[in-house]
Amino acid sequence: MKFNSHLSKIEVYEAGKPIELIVREFGISPEQVIKMASNENPFGMSPKVAKKLAENSSKGYLYPDDSMFELKEGLAQRFQVDSSNIIIGAGSDQVLDFISRAKLTSSSKVLMNRVTFAMYEIYANLVGAKVLKTDSTHHDLEQFYQIYKNERPDTIFICTPNNPTGDAIERDELYRFLEKIDSETLVVVDGAYMEYAEKRNPNFKIEPSELIDKFPNSIYLGTFSKAFGLGGMRVGYGIAQRDIIQNLYKVRPPFNITTLSLLAGVEALKDMEHVWKSVEINFQEMEKFEKFADEVGFQYIESATNFITLLLPERYNSSNISNELLRMGIIIRDLKGYGLNGVRVTIGKPEENIRFFEIFRNVL
Amino acid sequence: MKFNSHLSKIEVYEAGKPIELIVREFGISPEQVIKMASNENPFGMSPKVAKKLAENSSKGYLYPDDSMFELKEGLAQRFQVDSSNIIIGAGSDQVLDFISRAKLTSSSKVLMNRVTFAMYEIYANLVGAKVLKTDSTHHDLEQFYQIYKNERPDTIFICTPNNPTGDAIERDELYRFLEKIDSETLVVVDGAYMEYAEKRNPNFKIEPSELIDKFPNSIYLGTFSKAFGLGGMRVGYGIAQRDIIQNLYKVRPPFNITTLSLLAGVEALKDMEHVWKSVEINFQEMEKFEKFADEVGFQYIESATNFITLLLPERYNSSNISNELLRMGIIIRDLKGYGLNGVRVTIGKPEENIRFFEIFRNVL
Repeated sequence: MKFNSHLSKIEVYEAGKPIELIVREFGISPEQVIKMASNENPFGMSPKVAKKLAENSSKGYLYPDDSMFELKEGLAQRFQVDSSNIIIGAGSDQVLDFISRAKLTSSSKVLMNRVTFAMYEIYANLVGAKVLKTDSTHHDLEQFYQIYKNERPDTIFICTPNNPTGDAIERDELYRFLEKIDSETLVVVDGAYMEYAEKRNPNFKIEPSELIDKFPNSIYLGTFSKAFGLGGMRVGYGIAQRDIIQNLYKVRPPFNITTLSLLAGVEALKDMEHVWKSVEINFQEMEKFEKFADEVGFQYIESATNFITLLLPERYNSSNISNELLRMGIIIRDLKGYGLNGVRVTIGKPEENIRFFEIFRNVL
Repeated sequence: MKFNSHLSKIEVYEAGKPIELIVREFGISPEQVIKMASNENPFGMSPKVAKKLAENSSKGYLYPDDSMFELKEGLAQRFQVDSSNIIIGAGSDQVLDFISRAKLTSSSKVLMNRVTFAMYEIYANLVGAKVLKTDSTHHDLEQFYQIYKNERPDTIFICTPNNPTGDAIERDELYRFLEKIDSETLVVVDGAYMEYAEKRNPNFKIEPSELIDKFPNSIYLGTFSKAFGLGGMRVGYGIAQRDIIQNLYKVRPPFNITTLSLLAGVEALKDMEHVWKSVEINFQEMEKFEKFADEVGFQYIESATNFITLLLPERYNSSNISNELLRMGIIIRDLKGYGLNGVRVTIGKPEENIRFFEIFRNVL
């Protein structure tokens, strides 16, 4: 049977390997597996959220409140915007999908960093848009601007902090860039790791209300998957001016997050202490990774997130090392597919990190 | 800002109203609200599923096993197909979305019944495909065939039992129709309510393995949202020949169902007793609705599902009646938007149905 011709170009996103797979493939018991590949919060969700979910698990038979009234109210309060400035997605991924479907066609162009979140390109390919990329690992906004000027893309993706590299852009630098972009070009500012970045350096903090006020052609993306510890619940959001949100709503399928995910999001916003505590420990542990890298003579990218990218000396191959670790029950992310001889490692709990350092040393 | 021009044609799907809205708008306490609008299983999910979810709620911080190994194995066993014949969606809705994105473009045509599940048209509109419809309330397969012959649509949607009317097609009749359809036309057989239909009349039962074996151009859709009582967990599936499934996989976003939804689906398949018990009570209660309709002099459509469509005499307006019931805390589905002066009512628990009959009588 014939399917759409542009599908042939589509790469299927390779998700971080789940614990279940390692258990199945290598016969390692689940307790022995450490997952440092998908940047989940290793401290998990707030215990208050877990309790709320446990108490309400049987409510999962009812469709959710599709207006997502309470969750949008909670986010509106947190970010000092109006509910009508918010759209909820099954992860911020899904908001990317809405953007591609609402704004892009096969004659559109999109611009993104050479090394950045893979889904920007995947969703653009799904609608057949042309993908333009800078040629640097870090966001070089001067280069972004040059390409913008010559090519006039319909949408620009800025990931700050950037995944999978971990570096962030200072707010003032981003604003100077945005001032030069015309009002018809949608600029996506993906702040999936912003809770980490703003604690690392207040100058990294992008406040969505200020962003969309100054630049009505921008949309801010956030998620509950990282610092909030709800990766598996699939809840993210976009914040933008109302005309943008209304257009994205047209391509949103009904009931796009689950009843329990909705509950989890609402409850998670009530326990910011859990978030900030996780972020604090994250950066304490990050220092140990930096020290470890220095000790074994690896370079690393200074990270404003809950992961660190280690760049390997030429004598090592990131794919081989990742595979060897996998056999020892440690799942990390090989960056070969991103054109880097490096690995991305989620900062784990203190005890997990100790084990990681030990096993990594043995593998070298 | 400019968005894609075909968005202007898109109608936003109006979901059944959630209990929360009635509580907010009319100040009725949640316990007083009876939701009979969205065809959830009123007996909810299996208690075993609820227990599993409660015990594992804190696992929602981890992304799900994106291969969905265990769930696909469970479905493969239930339906006697191979795992590679299965794709999982966030509800069978999402599989419809995959189909539209993989098979349709703005130069495609799709064919469906005049009155049928609204999402077929919405997803077709999202990719700009032309929508062709029969002109009858029930699936008239002769008419389907005539339009097929003249227009050669790329995809045909058959909903059996049909939503929102409740009637089903006999297997032999469907097969006779499918024999006349060429192998390049994808035929979607949506069996969202099949667990109900097969108990109502064994001749309604479509066995996915037989269907895709006889007709390799077909895809069967099923869901956990109805008889399995997992509406709010968003889990559905498509079963088709491997080449179709592989193409749909290309447009599937990663982690498209939640970690808890995956658990719920796996667990639900282990408690078929809960499903069949719910179905049995459903049809016992259905008889009371039929009797009630006879008593008040309404026509109804004989239903093979967990809802019944009541057709109102001209002196009543289905929108007014639905609104009056809403104010009394009873949520049903007005079918005015489908071109019918009727209402669709989900069969509730015995005690809910008694209250429904009483309040409905008062409203007439």
